[in-house]
Amino acid sequence: MDLTIERLGPARIHSPLNLSTQLGDQVCNFVPDDEKILYDVSLSACRTCRREGAETLPLAFERAGPREKIYFDPSKVRAAVVTCGGLCPGINNVVRALVMELTYHYGVRHIYGFRFGYAGMVPDFGYDVLDLTPELVRDIHHDGGSLLGSSRGPQDPEVMVDTLDRMGIGILFTIGGDGTHRGAMAIHEEISRRGLKIAVVGIPKTIDNDILLVEKTFGFETAFSIAIEAIRAAHVEASGTPNGVGLVQLMGRHSGYIAANAALAEPDVNCVLVPEVPFVIDGERGLVAWLRRRLEKRGHAVIVVAEGAGQEFLGGNHSTDASGNVDLADIGLYLKQRLTSELKAAGVSHSLKYIDPSYIIRSAPANPNDSLFCATLAQNAVHAAMTGRTGMLVGIWHNIFTHVPIAAAVSGRKLIDPEGELWRSVLEITGQPAAWQ
Amino acid sequence: MDLTIERLGPARIHSPLNLSTQLGDQVCNFVPDDEKILYDVSLSACRTCRREGAETLPLAFERAGPREKIYFDPSKVRAAVVTCGGLCPGINNVVRALVMELTYHYGVRHIYGFRFGYAGMVPDFGYDVLDLTPELVRDIHHDGGSLLGSSRGPQDPEVMVDTLDRMGIGILFTIGGDGTHRGAMAIHEEISRRGLKIAVVGIPKTIDNDILLVEKTFGFETAFSIAIEAIRAAHVEASGTPNGVGLVQLMGRHSGYIAANAALAEPDVNCVLVPEVPFVIDGERGLVAWLRRRLEKRGHAVIVVAEGAGQEFLGGNHSTDASGNVDLADIGLYLKQRLTSELKAAGVSHSLKYIDPSYIIRSAPANPNDSLFCATLAQNAVHAAMTGRTGMLVGIWHNIFTHVPIAAAVSGRKLIDPEGELWRSVLEITGQPAAWQ
Amino acid sequence: MDLTIERLGPARIHSPLNLSTQLGDQVCNFVPDDEKILYDVSLSACRTCRREGAETLPLAFERAGPREKIYFDPSKVRAAVVTCGGLCPGINNVVRALVMELTYHYGVRHIYGFRFGYAGMVPDFGYDVLDLTPELVRDIHHDGGSLLGSSRGPQDPEVMVDTLDRMGIGILFTIGGDGTHRGAMAIHEEISRRGLKIAVVGIPKTIDNDILLVEKTFGFETAFSIAIEAIRAAHVEASGTPNGVGLVQLMGRHSGYIAANAALAEPDVNCVLVPEVPFVIDGERGLVAWLRRRLEKRGHAVIVVAEGAGQEFLGGNHSTDASGNVDLADIGLYLKQRLTSELKAAGVSHSLKYIDPSYIIRSAPANPNDSLFCATLAQNAVHAAMTGRTGMLVGIWHNIFTHVPIAAAVSGRKLIDPEGELWRSVLEITGQPAAWQ
Amino acid sequence: MDLTIERLGPARIHSPLNLSTQLGDQVCNFVPDDEKILYDVSLSACRTCRREGAETLPLAFERAGPREKIYFDPSKVRAAVVTCGGLCPGINNVVRALVMELTYHYGVRHIYGFRFGYAGMVPDFGYDVLDLTPELVRDIHHDGGSLLGSSRGPQDPEVMVDTLDRMGIGILFTIGGDGTHRGAMAIHEEISRRGLKIAVVGIPKTIDNDILLVEKTFGFETAFSIAIEAIRAAHVEASGTPNGVGLVQLMGRHSGYIAANAALAEPDVNCVLVPEVPFVIDGERGLVAWLRRRLEKRGHAVIVVAEGAGQEFLGGNHSTDASGNVDLADIGLYLKQRLTSELKAAGVSHSLKYIDPSYIIRSAPANPNDSLFCATLAQNAVHAAMTGRTGMLVGIWHNIFTHVPIAAAVSGRKLIDPEGELWRSVLEITGQPAAWQ
Repeated sequence: MDLTIERLGPARIHSPLNLSTQLGDQVCNFVPDDEKILYDVSLSACRTCRREGAETLPLAFERAGPREKIYFDPSKVRAAVVTCGGLCPGINNVVRALVMELTYHYGVRHIYGFRFGYAGMVPDFGYDVLDLTPELVRDIHHDGGSLLGSSRGPQDPEVMVDTLDRMGIGILFTIGGDGTHRGAMAIHEEISRRGLKIAVVGIPKTIDNDILLVEKTFGFETAFSIAIEAIRAAHVEASGTPNGVGLVQLMGRHSGYIAANAALAEPDVNCVLVPEVPFVIDGERGLVAWLRRRLEKRGHAVIVVAEGAGQEFLGGNHSTDASGNVDLADIGLYLKQRLTSELKAAGVSHSLKYIDPSYIIRSAPANPNDSLFCATLAQNAVHAAMTGRTGMLVGIWHNIFTHVPIAAAVSGRKLIDPEGELWRSVLEITGQPAAWQ
Repeated sequence: MDLTIERLGPARIHSPLNLSTQLGDQVCNFVPDDEKILYDVSLSACRTCRREGAETLPLAFERAGPREKIYFDPSKVRAAVVTCGGLCPGINNVVRALVMELTYHYGVRHIYGFRFGYAGMVPDFGYDVLDLTPELVRDIHHDGGSLLGSSRGPQDPEVMVDTLDRMGIGILFTIGGDGTHRGAMAIHEEISRRGLKIAVVGIPKTIDNDILLVEKTFGFETAFSIAIEAIRAAHVEASGTPNGVGLVQLMGRHSGYIAANAALAEPDVNCVLVPEVPFVIDGERGLVAWLRRRLEKRGHAVIVVAEGAGQEFLGGNHSTDASGNVDLADIGLYLKQRLTSELKAAGVSHSLKYIDPSYIIRSAPANPNDSLFCATLAQNAVHAAMTGRTGMLVGIWHNIFTHVPIAAAVSGRKLIDPEGELWRSVLEITGQPAAWQ
Repeated sequence: MDLTIERLGPARIHSPLNLSTQLGDQVCNFVPDDEKILYDVSLSACRTCRREGAETLPLAFERAGPREKIYFDPSKVRAAVVTCGGLCPGINNVVRALVMELTYHYGVRHIYGFRFGYAGMVPDFGYDVLDLTPELVRDIHHDGGSLLGSSRGPQDPEVMVDTLDRMGIGILFTIGGDGTHRGAMAIHEEISRRGLKIAVVGIPKTIDNDILLVEKTFGFETAFSIAIEAIRAAHVEASGTPNGVGLVQLMGRHSGYIAANAALAEPDVNCVLVPEVPFVIDGERGLVAWLRRRLEKRGHAVIVVAEGAGQEFLGGNHSTDASGNVDLADIGLYLKQRLTSELKAAGVSHSLKYIDPSYIIRSAPANPNDSLFCATLAQNAVHAAMTGRTGMLVGIWHNIFTHVPIAAAVSGRKLIDPEGELWRSVLEITGQPAAWQ
Repeated sequence: MDLTIERLGPARIHSPLNLSTQLGDQVCNFVPDDEKILYDVSLSACRTCRREGAETLPLAFERAGPREKIYFDPSKVRAAVVTCGGLCPGINNVVRALVMELTYHYGVRHIYGFRFGYAGMVPDFGYDVLDLTPELVRDIHHDGGSLLGSSRGPQDPEVMVDTLDRMGIGILFTIGGDGTHRGAMAIHEEISRRGLKIAVVGIPKTIDNDILLVEKTFGFETAFSIAIEAIRAAHVEASGTPNGVGLVQLMGRHSGYIAANAALAEPDVNCVLVPEVPFVIDGERGLVAWLRRRLEKRGHAVIVVAEGAGQEFLGGNHSTDASGNVDLADIGLYLKQRLTSELKAAGVSHSLKYIDPSYIIRSAPANPNDSLFCATLAQNAVHAAMTGRTGMLVGIWHNIFTHVPIAAAVSGRKLIDPEGELWRSVLEITGQPAAWQ
């Protein structure tokens, strides 16, 4: 995999004037331009690489952080921000921190916000462009949602690059998920085709935490943290009535990270169903039989299901939403009906309560740790963009901020490894079957 | 209406021994046995009553509180607690405070908890009876749900009274709503028929706040307080996308208090639909037309609907649940589909997000003000029961704790007055139409 | 006591034009101009009054609410708002609701906010006046503090009335406590002296809940709700170590309502000390002896002290702050040191943790029930002001919104009745001595 | 530095019977016994190591996780848990997860809890030993504090090992900070001296996050998350009054991580003072001059100070507490008085509010991410102990759970690097001086 980061040209301006002034004769702790972080941090990987000799450098990410020389002249460059896709805790924190870092740390004076996603870059929609000043964004980190608004779906890259060009934008920050970054790739390619000097730097936003080569995305921790309120509710309801069953559907189209993390954070969960681990409903080793055994033994049960799990049970032809995501049929509602009727058929008097906290989670403000994460992600995105790096995302790997080529990040999806540490902990804490057949 | 409270017999034991000891030579501030609180507290009611002369005393409630003389001997009486119906914040607070007040204030030594509602009083179900000790209940007020568990539906009064009689119970505290109190009435009548000396004292529990002659029920404030999180989420989602619509379904089978109060507490709501105020969907003055005007003018809208509103749109024959409540068809889901299709038909591109926070609310622990309310309700329930009062509920009226005959409380339902102060404030704050046709 | 409300003149404009338009042919549910609510709502008071005959009407408050005829022409009148004294949860909610009600319900077009309390009405300080538009205040209810800022201390009424006159203000809303309302009285008297037509309507703001004739002030519930976090912390610390003592100082200069309510809401408190109930430290019946008995019996203790309690132990000459409040010496710190040294002297190995959550409470946003209360208080303040009522506060009495003459409200202070229901509940729940000597 | 982990002897029992049964014919994903994680994960370190040849393996930690072969027979081994030092969010989560993992995953049947720290291992104190059953610990993770209680200070290792020996304990889990681990070392050495087969496995607990070779300790995230409530309060108070100054003291005896992280999470902080970066108060570049400039420019300021910062200003001879920690004089109170008097002397009218949220933070329950962290830490501690590893802590390094020799961990303290990424982000976000002289 190629982790090389593209650049608009050599950096030449000594990094940032106002910073120097502020720090007086202090030397700022810049990151060396070529510092890299290993992809595989095990000792054995290091040994392997040693055996193989110098030509085969191990896979490594560029380390993020401020560089001594920058590409853009802060007093002249114009930056813009666009937020796309579904809501996710922390978007406003990222927008705020981009504006603050650009303004106060580098002295950039023109920052614009496109409204309602990529649609805001298309004149036909007629959305105004916001002037992103420190005054406007000062308190937005206390609110969920996006100051800029969002929308789903791609737009014509040529039209969007026309807009950037016409407005004299030098840096575009794209905040979004998989679809957004495919869009950012298209914009970046159109920019390259025209030979424009516009940096495109993404900040990955996916509540599902499923971006490849990025250890953690912002909003994810807030998401599973709020999810545990639904789990606690399910547990209280389940344990407050004879043969009570609490069923919680959580987000996770392809990757069950929210469900898995929530179950580790609130150990009242007895079974977690995720897209990465197939399950069966019928038979001695199926979900219904497991549930009946659990009720017999303990009198109540809490099940958490990620929205992308068990799609094979739902049948039918799926359409796609404006972002190109396949419209998932509702596994939660399916299980609610299926489990109820199976228990009823088996003569098990019971009470099943179903909870889907989706929008309460998506619209929440970032929790403190996510706030911190958003703030530092944005600082590093600004550092990268000011050096002229482009076609890249700011990521994090083994707790160190990194630069990731968009092309590499969108080449696949990050999934829970059913043989890995996370799922092992889930199996240990729930005591659920490691396999369903 | 008759607000006279029944009693098992004259109170004679000087109130409570251990309290006297504790207070030394202090005089305790007992409530005079016949102190009453006016039903109508307006000056004009007082004037009317004056004109009418002494024979026609105005309607008034017995005031709750400790009496100097009590009926039961604390060292001998056995008390029991049963919690019925759906979960509601504060049940554990009430159970805890009953136990603490009985134990430490009066010196009662035997307190039992029936499990899983009235079913726990029927031997055939085989549920154990819990020994409610201070140690067991010390920390339960931090948790939602019910330590005792709950269930819906009536049981045979004769069987339940058999149980009380066999266990030598002198006081039964019933925590529940309308159905529970009908059950308590039946138990009370069976006790009277047999000439037993068992006091039945209810603590009204209805998350909907719809008990007649009771100003406020416990858990209601917590309920609308948590509901505003769903409203904020709906607002963030609605305002974060072009023509965003947030639709929140809240509890309220017959009475829209939760919806109305939530809208006053979080003024992002643009329209509240409650069972007490009919609405229309079609036509120039209907909901769809209103929504289209709102979107045109402001670009987003938040609608809150109580679950019992607009049932006439849902048609069909309704079954009833185990508590005898009519199974409401889901007005929230109906409106979600109807509004979406109407807007689509009208060519209005939009995005509607639906939130139903029901179980997250029901299972929550009581907030501090509800905790305080539960604690004082329980103290007053114990005071009333110890004097031999029976067939009554502890209520609150114009902020003063009262005794309410169960018969009076179950004779109807408390509803929002569409001409009253609460609904007027809602109309002022939302700016929604006062009438839909 | 005289509860008559002053007016600027007869109301004549038919109430409010834009409301009528909005409601179409609906009749609005106005409150009759002379509707009153009894001060004493007991049946015996009604009986007494009946015996005494028609001349002696019982004491009663004007009921708040919209009137059919108003005094000010909404399209012309200019309103202003000032917030004074210490911070309290809900100030922003009140300001927001005043602006919304004036703008959308009555159609008032000019609303100003003075900055930093009465100082903002004195040109010499040079503070700008804010234009209070719906856009500006839309989201401020999510934040604690005051958008307008605040300050302590009186200013010259003549100078302030000059400002009102020069700006053409017709209505001044004053949000503040005892000192603020004395200031509002002075402004009101200066206005009367000059024969100006300016209504002065106050909204009582005191976190201590100590305004006479007002059952509850906004922010108070939020205050004791947050206070229980400190109590829980104290309990966790106390019970987590041998002979642990948790000591929490809460607000309450003259009235211990926050301490008393917090103890009822979180029953881990073993002793509450308030200004209204004197206590002793030494001797067999003193606090130290009580604490030693408690530690011996239970191994830990939690004490809550209101800041105004036990001032006699602190000695010294007290100065006053800018609001004229006597600077209380710190009873919490005094008890911390005193109890520690007494226990040490008695050879009791222990660990005392002291918590003072003051500013965390004062600066918090209003909780949902307080938000609702602020919103309706403000609606009623606007209703009253629009009718030309002046020299009054909006209060609440037995859960009904009322008009209270400022003169009556500042004639004393509301205190906990040591023989009343609240303190009785506290004694029952803590089990603490009813008297300390 | 030596990162070799000691063991009691070779592991031989095939890992855990009940797990195998549960998983049926599934292969469990064990961690290879010698898997290691690099200390330095930069590409350049890997290059260096390559140049230097095979003899010099780079520094690396053993990776934590379940091993195929274990040392103790689960059906026979007895485990014990002790919690020492000050409270910290998450202690109960760790205790719960230890019990659950031992019981349900490995089938261990005897788990004991010593009460009140190391004192509980000394018979003379007379504390009972708790039987740690799944029933007892099921819900304790919802509460702050420690079920077991805690105390400070060392006890005689010989007496403690006598206790372990007498009780037949095979595994001792120690939950605590620096002092606790020195105690655990002493216990471990005494065990070795006697040739006993008792594993000592620590779980590092320090709210300050200052354990060497451990990236993050549990409770730390919860701590800085709650700290931002104090910062928000300080900001609301500061910005609500002319020249308002909010001063917050946070924990951090030697390391300012809580202060630094809180400032990144809530960017209303204008200045962070930590032990690692000296500051001056007087002079053109001192704190007072900075504050005056800030007030002149912005009208308010928020300062966060870690308790261990600026100790040189406090003078005096410091005593030590029972844990051997130097009693820090209160820099927060010192700055409160000093800044107030300096501003007063300079004629700057202002208002300073001081907040110290210490015990509210320490006693809080763990937030969801910390809960998850505690649960997985405990799982890994159990895995390590069952293999007979001893004299070690479970740590985390670059997001991977590791084994750390206690001797290495207590050989120093983890400090913020003033030239590192964290402090750079703080400087960027606050805009405060990088150096004070």
